[in-house]
Amino acid sequence: MPGTAAPVNLAHALSQFSEMWSQKTVASLNDYEVKLAKLKGEFVWHTHDDTDELFLVLDGRLTIRLRDGDVVLETGELFVVPRGVEHCPVAEQETAILLFEPAGTLNTGDADGPMTKAAERLDRP
Amino acid sequence: MPGTAAPVNLAHALSQFSEMWSQKTVASLNDYEVKLAKLKGEFVWHTHDDTDELFLVLDGRLTIRLRDGDVVLETGELFVVPRGVEHCPVAEQETAILLFEPAGTLNTGDADGPMTKAAERLDRP
Repeated sequence: MPGTAAPVNLAHALSQFSEMWSQKTVASLNDYEVKLAKLKGEFVWHTHDDTDELFLVLDGRLTIRLRDGDVVLETGELFVVPRGVEHCPVAEQETAILLFEPAGTLNTGDADGPMTKAAERLDRP
Repeated sequence: MPGTAAPVNLAHALSQFSEMWSQKTVASLNDYEVKLAKLKGEFVWHTHDDTDELFLVLDGRLTIRLRDGDVVLETGELFVVPRGVEHCPVAEQETAILLFEPAGTLNTGDADGPMTKAAERLDRP
C-alpha cells in the first residue's frame, strides 16, 4: 500500500510492543519505510553497503559507535549513517528510536547472525 | 555529501529560522531529504504526482485537508499523503513539522505559484 491510511501516533505505536531490537514498520513512503524500535544494550557492528540509514531518538539516548568515534544522540536528535560506514548502536538505558530507510533493509546489514530480524508491520500503529 | 556529518538537534534547527512555509533541509538520506518547516495559516491545494510525502508534527497541530476529509495531526503524529492525492496543509496556530521526501520535491507540487519555494539547506542544523 502506498502511503498511510491514518495518522500514526508515535507514542501509541511505541506502547504496542516491548521487545528490544525488533523493528516495527509504521508507515511506508514510496519504497522507503518508517520504523520504530526500542533498544537497550549493545547491538552488533555492521554496515549497510547500499543505503544510508537515519536514526531519530524519540526517547532516551543512543550512542552510535563508529570506527573513528562515537556519535551521541539525545532525545530529539537525528543522525544519518552513510552507506558503507561500519557502526554499532548502543543504548545504556531503554531508548526509543525512529528509523528511516529503504524497505527491506536488514537490521544487521552485512552482519547476519542471531540479532538479524526482518521488520514487522505494526497492525494498529 | 551522503548522510549527515553531525547530529541534528531538531529544536535547535527550528530555532534557526522563523519564516513560515519555508522548507529547510537538515539532512540527506540517499536521494531523500529531511526538511523542517513552520506553518501558520492555509497553504495551497496541490498534488505530488511522483511521490508520497511524509508529515510529522514536531510542535503544534496540522490539518491536512484532503478532498474526501481532513486528517488532523497532533504533536508526535505522522501521516503520509500518497502520490497523486490532492491536499492542502492548514495550521491554525504556528506549527513545526518534519517532512521526508525525495530531494527536489517542490512544496507546491503541481500548483506552481506565489507560495512555490525551493527548500534551503540550514547551515548549522
